[in-house]
Amino acid sequence: MTGDTPLDGDLHARAFLARVLEPGDEVGGRWVRELGAAEVARRLRTGGPQLAGVTDRRWNGLRARAEGTEPERDLSAADEAGVRYVCPGDVEWPAQLDDLGDARPLGLWVRGRPSLRMWALRSVAVVGARACTGYGAHVSATLAAGLAEAGWVVVSGGAYGVDGAAHRGALGAGGATVAVLACGVDRPYPRGHTELITRIAEQGLVVGELPPGEHPTPSRFILRNRVIAALTRGTIVVEAAHRSGSLVTARAARRLGRHTMGVPGPVTSGLSAGVHELLRGDAVLVADAADVVELVGDMGELAPDRRGPVLPRDLLEPAARRVLAALPGRGTAAPYDIARGAQTTEDDAIARLYELRSLGYVERHGDGWKLTRQAVISVRAGRGRG
Amino acid sequence: MTGDTPLDGDLHARAFLARVLEPGDEVGGRWVRELGAAEVARRLRTGGPQLAGVTDRRWNGLRARAEGTEPERDLSAADEAGVRYVCPGDVEWPAQLDDLGDARPLGLWVRGRPSLRMWALRSVAVVGARACTGYGAHVSATLAAGLAEAGWVVVSGGAYGVDGAAHRGALGAGGATVAVLACGVDRPYPRGHTELITRIAEQGLVVGELPPGEHPTPSRFILRNRVIAALTRGTIVVEAAHRSGSLVTARAARRLGRHTMGVPGPVTSGLSAGVHELLRGDAVLVADAADVVELVGDMGELAPDRRGPVLPRDLLEPAARRVLAALPGRGTAAPYDIARGAQTTEDDAIARLYELRSLGYVERHGDGWKLTRQAVISVRAGRGRG
Repeated sequence: MTGDTPLDGDLHARAFLARVLEPGDEVGGRWVRELGAAEVARRLRTGGPQLAGVTDRRWNGLRARAEGTEPERDLSAADEAGVRYVCPGDVEWPAQLDDLGDARPLGLWVRGRPSLRMWALRSVAVVGARACTGYGAHVSATLAAGLAEAGWVVVSGGAYGVDGAAHRGALGAGGATVAVLACGVDRPYPRGHTELITRIAEQGLVVGELPPGEHPTPSRFILRNRVIAALTRGTIVVEAAHRSGSLVTARAARRLGRHTMGVPGPVTSGLSAGVHELLRGDAVLVADAADVVELVGDMGELAPDRRGPVLPRDLLEPAARRVLAALPGRGTAAPYDIARGAQTTEDDAIARLYELRSLGYVERHGDGWKLTRQAVISVRAGRGRG
Repeated sequence: MTGDTPLDGDLHARAFLARVLEPGDEVGGRWVRELGAAEVARRLRTGGPQLAGVTDRRWNGLRARAEGTEPERDLSAADEAGVRYVCPGDVEWPAQLDDLGDARPLGLWVRGRPSLRMWALRSVAVVGARACTGYGAHVSATLAAGLAEAGWVVVSGGAYGVDGAAHRGALGAGGATVAVLACGVDRPYPRGHTELITRIAEQGLVVGELPPGEHPTPSRFILRNRVIAALTRGTIVVEAAHRSGSLVTARAARRLGRHTMGVPGPVTSGLSAGVHELLRGDAVLVADAADVVELVGDMGELAPDRRGPVLPRDLLEPAARRVLAALPGRGTAAPYDIARGAQTTEDDAIARLYELRSLGYVERHGDGWKLTRQAVISVRAGRGRG
């Protein structure tokens, strides 16, 4: 690899930097903000001029990591594996990640059909202990199922324990779930969750800021948590011991102005002690999905269902428009029937339905979906014009 | 009984009114505040003039209850049974009950050695469901034992479930406990707690505003709760279903400016739902005695141990002074040895030790008691003067 491969595209530059800089590197984030990703990548490739605020030793370390990095290969391999690289400026980029400032991910590698941006609009994180109790697993699954049934997207970290139970609870309710990994999205971690993560990629989204093939490390787990916190409207902690990583996520959520919630448990359980610590602070106690929805659902600017759809129907993507057209004028329809009407698969229909839910067009009732009152009005108005 | 028995003493008048007015009757409390207990009693006995704001029907009802009321007999029967009637103005009257305004009890019937006023100074209420779970019983007992070990007086209602577990936890730790009953203190309720309440009267205090022989009623239970709330520095609810009486106590505590605390439990348990409701409001989550002490222990004006004893040693009652004198100059002593040194029983010694604790003279360490640093200084100063 020589220094003369062109790196003009912002996407290529970011894919390159994603291999060189660790997640959440705020110094690197500042370079990108001040000079642009392409210029930072060029300097690291060609060897200069040296970037601001960096020691010679660190500079040489970064240069060594830059050596041999082939973003084109990463991007084309990702593309072949059905993984896309979503970067700031992209229509799918979730704008709320910008709240992370210079610690904002360079981009996110995304596996799965739905629009990350749309899904993240109405999402909540459910996180907690890996070695959770039966109580914690039960509560996580029930909570996630309830959130999914209420049309919310459940975000978690794909780990054993609470994370896995939450993903499974959402999937089991025919709902929407997103796993944010601390490694390459092509490399499910933990190994025991390979099938689960594959299923999430089919029915939902698997995302991560680390390029394909990268392994998780303790610091990557911790830094991944800021993405979960920033992506969602709020973070719910179900079981966490004192000094647990889930508390890091909750505190990050708090700092970002997101809702921080905790599910209490027996005071005789060390795995509830961390949650109780949060609840003694700013976190709000939630006992079920209804409590969560009551809390996170009333953020004026993010509650399009209060005001009708946020996006005119004509601006919807064709796939979403077909699914919308397949919904009956009144009453509910099952995803299977909607999929048939839209001539797509059920998984794809569900992905679009949750996007349409985020936009205020549809709502979920039990296992069925129906147009919102505002959507009916907007569709009729559209027909009237057509 | 005729209307001509003299009722001049305030104590007699209050004992008389305690049979005529129901607990917490604010109209009656206002009459007493405006006219004095003796005058209100005289009018009810002699038939006039009729009191303000009362319908003829209610006036006749009160007159009928007044008929046949013999406060002298109540007071002498109580005296024989070792029960004293403590009224506002009495040295043993807990001044914090005055926060109840016109709903302040007319007086409290008290069984047991310790000074109610002294004990109430450093007391906390532990209340909750009668039909509690094993978890609730375990937590109540552990919490009460921990509070007792930290020198705090545990107040509860003597009922089955959480109340009983809390009293037993305090007694089992060789600690101080007060049962506030919704009936006459000579008539333990529930029957199944006869032995427990008898033991509380021996090692602690059994109090109530209802005269000897009175039965509990649903409204008396509810009104008793305001006394528990007002007497203590804070109320901890351990397990309560929605609409539980314990929540009434907690809300009364809140209105009175006392600390309101709740012990969380599994969200899958209906008996924790009421507590979680409180915790979503103003109540503070507590997981153990240390959490409680941290919260209730820092009220400046009620924390004499921060400033040294609040009462000069010379003003202590002789029994308390003897117990104080029996404590070693340094290190701890067991209640048994202190009792021997003070030439009294162990129960009496413990009663005085908790009084002295309230006054900032002594502190409890495990099973032993020692002088506080401030007390050592004060005792030395006293000796220097003597």
